[in-house]
Amino acid sequence: MKVVGSKQLKEISVRIFSQAGASIEEADLVSESLVEANLLGVDSHGVLRIPEYVRRIKDGAIKLGAQCTIIKETLTTALVDGGFGFGQVAAKKATSIAIDKAKSNNVSVVGLIRSNHIGRLGEYTSMIAEHGMIGISFCNTAPQGGIVAPFGGATRRLGTHPFSAAFPSNSFPFLLDYATSVIAEGKLRQKYYAKEKIPEGWIVDKNGKPSVNPADFYEGKGALLPFGGYKGYGLSLVVDALGGILTGAHFVSHNEFIGGNNPLIIAINISAFRPLEDFKAEVDEYFKVLKATPPAEGFKEVMIPGEIENRTKEKRIEEGIPINDEVWSRIEKTANDLGLDLKTLL
Amino acid sequence: MKVVGSKQLKEISVRIFSQAGASIEEADLVSESLVEANLLGVDSHGVLRIPEYVRRIKDGAIKLGAQCTIIKETLTTALVDGGFGFGQVAAKKATSIAIDKAKSNNVSVVGLIRSNHIGRLGEYTSMIAEHGMIGISFCNTAPQGGIVAPFGGATRRLGTHPFSAAFPSNSFPFLLDYATSVIAEGKLRQKYYAKEKIPEGWIVDKNGKPSVNPADFYEGKGALLPFGGYKGYGLSLVVDALGGILTGAHFVSHNEFIGGNNPLIIAINISAFRPLEDFKAEVDEYFKVLKATPPAEGFKEVMIPGEIENRTKEKRIEEGIPINDEVWSRIEKTANDLGLDLKTLL
Repeated sequence: MKVVGSKQLKEISVRIFSQAGASIEEADLVSESLVEANLLGVDSHGVLRIPEYVRRIKDGAIKLGAQCTIIKETLTTALVDGGFGFGQVAAKKATSIAIDKAKSNNVSVVGLIRSNHIGRLGEYTSMIAEHGMIGISFCNTAPQGGIVAPFGGATRRLGTHPFSAAFPSNSFPFLLDYATSVIAEGKLRQKYYAKEKIPEGWIVDKNGKPSVNPADFYEGKGALLPFGGYKGYGLSLVVDALGGILTGAHFVSHNEFIGGNNPLIIAINISAFRPLEDFKAEVDEYFKVLKATPPAEGFKEVMIPGEIENRTKEKRIEEGIPINDEVWSRIEKTANDLGLDLKTLL
Repeated sequence: MKVVGSKQLKEISVRIFSQAGASIEEADLVSESLVEANLLGVDSHGVLRIPEYVRRIKDGAIKLGAQCTIIKETLTTALVDGGFGFGQVAAKKATSIAIDKAKSNNVSVVGLIRSNHIGRLGEYTSMIAEHGMIGISFCNTAPQGGIVAPFGGATRRLGTHPFSAAFPSNSFPFLLDYATSVIAEGKLRQKYYAKEKIPEGWIVDKNGKPSVNPADFYEGKGALLPFGGYKGYGLSLVVDALGGILTGAHFVSHNEFIGGNNPLIIAINISAFRPLEDFKAEVDEYFKVLKATPPAEGFKEVMIPGEIENRTKEKRIEEGIPINDEVWSRIEKTANDLGLDLKTLL
């Protein structure tokens, strides 16, 4: 296990992406996004992704310098083409458009298509919350054909299809951000890299039988399962339809699914309903009432979405970001292949 | 078990509500809503509710003839006061406002407060889907103090907080409509009336221990559990915040929670993104791809949200609506108390 300070980790990330040909703006924005994920403890969306992104730059899948364009627009809606540049660059742009439109018209819905991996979906709903609004997002995403089985189904059809919602308080922002699969694919990958077993109920093997071995997913052709039975499955379909069908990106098991991450972003201006300060004060009260719930057997305390991430961030700013050896050696190899020596950067 | 035709059942319902003092318009709209729930197989939201509604009319909790008023409004948003009339009347009105605003401005968000039980939340998202739009709704609801425990918590804090989403296709409308608790309170009540045991994982007793006896909930002071662990719990909080905090109805365990059903309704005009016919055609294709998934062990087929309801409706239109004896005798008693003899209506 290696521990690296967030500033240093960002610097390393910026150097690698710059060396791979990214502009300073791109390298900075993407590195900021990855390191922020690590700070929040969402390591599956952190610097673990560097080798994958660099490979995709080389493959031409991530098109450096791509410009976002608006394909279709009304006062309250927009459909944005990310040009298959860095997903983080496109998603920030799409979110800014959603915020601007909701500032003028109180509600907005913005779709983003032709975008690479955008990182944490919660980064964008949080951006909206920082502007005194409610952010909701549904993001369809998967390798073509999907990697998640429908409830009651034996084979891959759906994506991990994350859902996120965020709103402001005076303490920390409420932030829900999760895959509608039992677990995010990135978290399964971490277990696979670490050669660890996984709990039952995460995946089925290629024959639709339960498995605790991540290799049955990556080396076989197994499928992740939706969370919460038919209810989580239903939410997953909503994500596929809003992120994919509505935007024209297509559902992920469609023959012509365009790939990448396709979020639909909703922004609602709180002050159209009640004064922002009243809303935030009541959210503070809500947090207090929830935290005061006596814990159930086996639990220490009731947690609020975003709370663990907030605590982890405080700790990691102080103590640095732990990175497991497998991930670090992959990052090191990526740097070496680009002619960079990480040791001179540490 | 009694079997009653839908037209007859509606007529009975209309007569009871009229006798209880409702206008013909109110009685007709509410009865239509309840019988439609029965037709779709959602018996927990069907005529089972008649005795409760009549009791609430007598108590003055349902204010007959109440008018809906708009408290706050912009081009894309509205906050509607239902005046504590019939919830179905107010929710239809609020949904019509959402549809009209989304027709003019492509997106709308409408909150409804001071409303009694609105029936199936999916009735309103379906109404939006019938207008070629995507309907999404979050409805905070609970007796004051809540009836659902937070994930990791031992006592009541949240409501059953339903979530619904609907969109059109050329076959049947996609319709997601579920409680963010493991089960809707109405379904627990059916088991309680039928004196049946419930599966483990639905409720905990007043000491936070798992129970399979619905009486531990109704006679003790147990709590329902959220579906899908922390993920369903997170969605439940979003419902509480959007339906309750944003609208000023307050979260359900707030001291001043106004009670009733408080839905936030979102309408998104599909044609702002792509032609409606293209969207519907792709949803048809989506349904086909999902239905073609080989079933997992123990399943006959993969189902689509709304599909079972659609099949049940076809069957019940043909064969009539089965009503269990306990429910029927409660309806009969309600009618008798109002001086009506159900036998003359059958």
